[in-house]
Amino acid sequence: MKIDELFALLRRRGAIWPSAEIYGGTQGLYDYGPIGVALKRRIEDAWVRWFVGLSDDYHQIQPAEILPEAVVRASGHLENFTDPEVTCENCHAAFRADTLLEKLRPEGVDGLSVAQIAELVSTHHPRCPNCGSANLSVPRPFNMMFGLELGPTGRERGYLAPETAQGSYLAFARMHEVGRKALPLGLAVIGKAYRNEIAPRQLLFRMRSFTQAELQIFFDPAAFEVPFAEVAEEKLPLLRVARREAGEERPEWVRAAELVDPGGIPAFYVYHLALTYRFYRDGLGHPAEGLRLFEKSEKERAFYNRIQFDIEAELPSLGGYRELGAVHYRGDYDLTRHSEGSGKDLSVNVEGRGRVLPHVLELTFGVDRNLWALADRLLRVEGERTVWQLPSYLAPVPVAVFPLLKKEHAAFAHRLVEELRDAGVPAAYDESGSIGRRYARMDEIGTPFCLTVDGATVDPAGPDAGTVTLRHRDSKAQERVPAKGLADRLRPTLVPPRATAAVPAG
Amino acid sequence: MKIDELFALLRRRGAIWPSAEIYGGTQGLYDYGPIGVALKRRIEDAWVRWFVGLSDDYHQIQPAEILPEAVVRASGHLENFTDPEVTCENCHAAFRADTLLEKLRPEGVDGLSVAQIAELVSTHHPRCPNCGSANLSVPRPFNMMFGLELGPTGRERGYLAPETAQGSYLAFARMHEVGRKALPLGLAVIGKAYRNEIAPRQLLFRMRSFTQAELQIFFDPAAFEVPFAEVAEEKLPLLRVARREAGEERPEWVRAAELVDPGGIPAFYVYHLALTYRFYRDGLGHPAEGLRLFEKSEKERAFYNRIQFDIEAELPSLGGYRELGAVHYRGDYDLTRHSEGSGKDLSVNVEGRGRVLPHVLELTFGVDRNLWALADRLLRVEGERTVWQLPSYLAPVPVAVFPLLKKEHAAFAHRLVEELRDAGVPAAYDESGSIGRRYARMDEIGTPFCLTVDGATVDPAGPDAGTVTLRHRDSKAQERVPAKGLADRLRPTLVPPRATAAVPAG
Repeated sequence: MKIDELFALLRRRGAIWPSAEIYGGTQGLYDYGPIGVALKRRIEDAWVRWFVGLSDDYHQIQPAEILPEAVVRASGHLENFTDPEVTCENCHAAFRADTLLEKLRPEGVDGLSVAQIAELVSTHHPRCPNCGSANLSVPRPFNMMFGLELGPTGRERGYLAPETAQGSYLAFARMHEVGRKALPLGLAVIGKAYRNEIAPRQLLFRMRSFTQAELQIFFDPAAFEVPFAEVAEEKLPLLRVARREAGEERPEWVRAAELVDPGGIPAFYVYHLALTYRFYRDGLGHPAEGLRLFEKSEKERAFYNRIQFDIEAELPSLGGYRELGAVHYRGDYDLTRHSEGSGKDLSVNVEGRGRVLPHVLELTFGVDRNLWALADRLLRVEGERTVWQLPSYLAPVPVAVFPLLKKEHAAFAHRLVEELRDAGVPAAYDESGSIGRRYARMDEIGTPFCLTVDGATVDPAGPDAGTVTLRHRDSKAQERVPAKGLADRLRPTLVPPRATAAVPAG
Repeated sequence: MKIDELFALLRRRGAIWPSAEIYGGTQGLYDYGPIGVALKRRIEDAWVRWFVGLSDDYHQIQPAEILPEAVVRASGHLENFTDPEVTCENCHAAFRADTLLEKLRPEGVDGLSVAQIAELVSTHHPRCPNCGSANLSVPRPFNMMFGLELGPTGRERGYLAPETAQGSYLAFARMHEVGRKALPLGLAVIGKAYRNEIAPRQLLFRMRSFTQAELQIFFDPAAFEVPFAEVAEEKLPLLRVARREAGEERPEWVRAAELVDPGGIPAFYVYHLALTYRFYRDGLGHPAEGLRLFEKSEKERAFYNRIQFDIEAELPSLGGYRELGAVHYRGDYDLTRHSEGSGKDLSVNVEGRGRVLPHVLELTFGVDRNLWALADRLLRVEGERTVWQLPSYLAPVPVAVFPLLKKEHAAFAHRLVEELRDAGVPAAYDESGSIGRRYARMDEIGTPFCLTVDGATVDPAGPDAGTVTLRHRDSKAQERVPAKGLADRLRPTLVPPRATAAVPAG
């Protein structure tokens, strides 16, 4: 589907819509409705089970999303978290200069300084996308953090967190202290991050307030053991820098073991990259086709990232591959900066090695983007039928219960809904329209199981007393099953998979 | 426990701590650690099941927490959401003038204008709590919203939402459209609200960033039917205005039916007030003793609230009763203001009545405060033993599994943990220290069920093969049970209760 069609469908079903819609919307901000809230939460739960479940020493925390100035000074965001901004001298609209240049310069603009971008603007003459004027200002760095005055005196300045990661770095010392005092230690945050985008666009892909799921793994670089054999034979869809420079867009399939490069890419990195790829395929249900692991070159990645592969999916609605997450090897940058900034030594004692300043491996995941990607890639239009082929554990409404006739079958259907809910199976009730229309409504939001209560169900003397019709979304197959015991049958399909058996602590 | 002791315990267990702690903390901001995240989420889930579960027409949504200026102008927050601020001319610290006056003026300062407070400051001469100087500035109204510049031009101004409620009012038209187009319609938000407190204090009770759970029920005032008989005989601990004015602090127990007052307090209000009280007692597990429903007088409540009772609990850690939630009858204030502000008619068609502008009943719940209240009221120190007597469905770690001996019993214990998790029962593994110490650690965080794997468990020929010791937190009773089937036995205790059977839609 095209971006507008897909958004229209999601809006019509009450999944997402522009925030403050009755006031004309607010740029870069969206509201989630019931379907969206449920899907978002199930994606988050799947992410937690997959990644936080990797070790009993990995924990979910929830740091405050307002950071004092000293923190963003130490992290480098105050100085470096900028986009090059140009304004149109004619209509006064503001734009990202690098975005304007993208189409004019096939080799891209990643990694250029503001001065270099200014030079390109003066030679390439991009036009204002709003009014068409070529009279644009000189680009200037615009800091994308939202600043806040804390308290009434104006003396304290804070910032909305531009990424959830900083909260984990700040919490590392405390969590190391209250835990087993061992490495690796993982801190996961699912929370809001805020970026004052110059020109928000592409709906959920460039929002001013968005949800990230990020896992920071703090480890001793001399001793990060991973069960590499579990992924060694996994074939990964890689698009490496050399291949990209040769003009290739399509990934090539490479065994994980081949990617390990002593002196280059370490085994622990490849292990987590492979698990990340598997999460998209086996955890979120993406077809392997159209996923790629996109290596960032030195000039493209942030200077503190030693290795970075983004995971990208090809999204027809957005006209190409888009980044959905990444694996960043950040080295000791973060704890070094916060040790200096806070004056607190963040190194820890490691038996046999003395004081060690942990390195950080960061696994990032954009929740909103991933929700969009699941709509783009798993919503299929088959003739008259629109089916969202979500894995059952991601479906916003896993089970729907229909009375064939309102009057005669509603009471049984309501009781069944309540029983399922009491047994931990989210179920919805729908009595309006023909059964066919109800199936269609549920297909559209990905409901894998529809249950119909009919005359045979409520005929106590009949052979099918107490049974209902269970209809499966993808096959459209129907079977007659006892209502009793349905919760136990369906519940296991609602548990998202694990990456691997959890690594025992200790 | 005293506030400092309780906070020290929660901090030591990694439940909460001051945000950006390594930088010396940030006023009014706290981080949640793993225990805190889990407890917070279970409280939220219990709230959702109780209140959103009241009707299939009640839904959870997640609006953006940045509001454009037009919204807060219409809602009145731009003009009225202020606290009276004084600064000390000597040390330049800032304070809330009303807080300084509270101790000097036994009759309270609620509902006074800034001018009246200024008058009182000039006659009562409060001193600066920081340096003791009596040289304080004239109070001025300080707006508690955090302002933001949206985009680089500085032309658009936004605000961090001071309450989650506004997001629901903005979403009402959309949700009415995508739903059954019927009233009552309920919109629930669990999300962040932000207040730039002049002087944050009392830890989780006055934070600059905090989590609210709020349900806005939009209804036709001529037809809000509730099953009142379900609560009619419930005795409510009321502290009404007249009783308060007579100097009483203790509530009196009054039947819900007696509180209904034609022309005064309508049945639908009392019904929701009674369900709210029941939620604290039956949903959160508070002892009825020490809860009260505190009626706000006309001058104390916001002018748009027609009726307001706060639910308060007596918290030894804070030296008295504190507000944990409230039921506000807001009339048609919100939709009137946003109809005017947005230019969109927010009235809806009601069969037989024509266009109706819905009234709003708001049920508010402060998640952070309630977490603190559960620690204050349910954490019991019994001699050497500290036990957090949380209902099992609220326990951050519902089940803990211990191997008696690391070497011999760890493998079975790990497998059991994984099986429980796969079956939807959150379980933790702990192998360090004596079983007694492990019990003590789990008691402190409220774990209701501890399972010990021992020699008999793993002796395939013995009579107790495959069984474990199940130890109950409150009774300390132990029983020998088969490991197989434990998930099915424990899972029902992890489902929070419902308020009542859901009201069928339609």
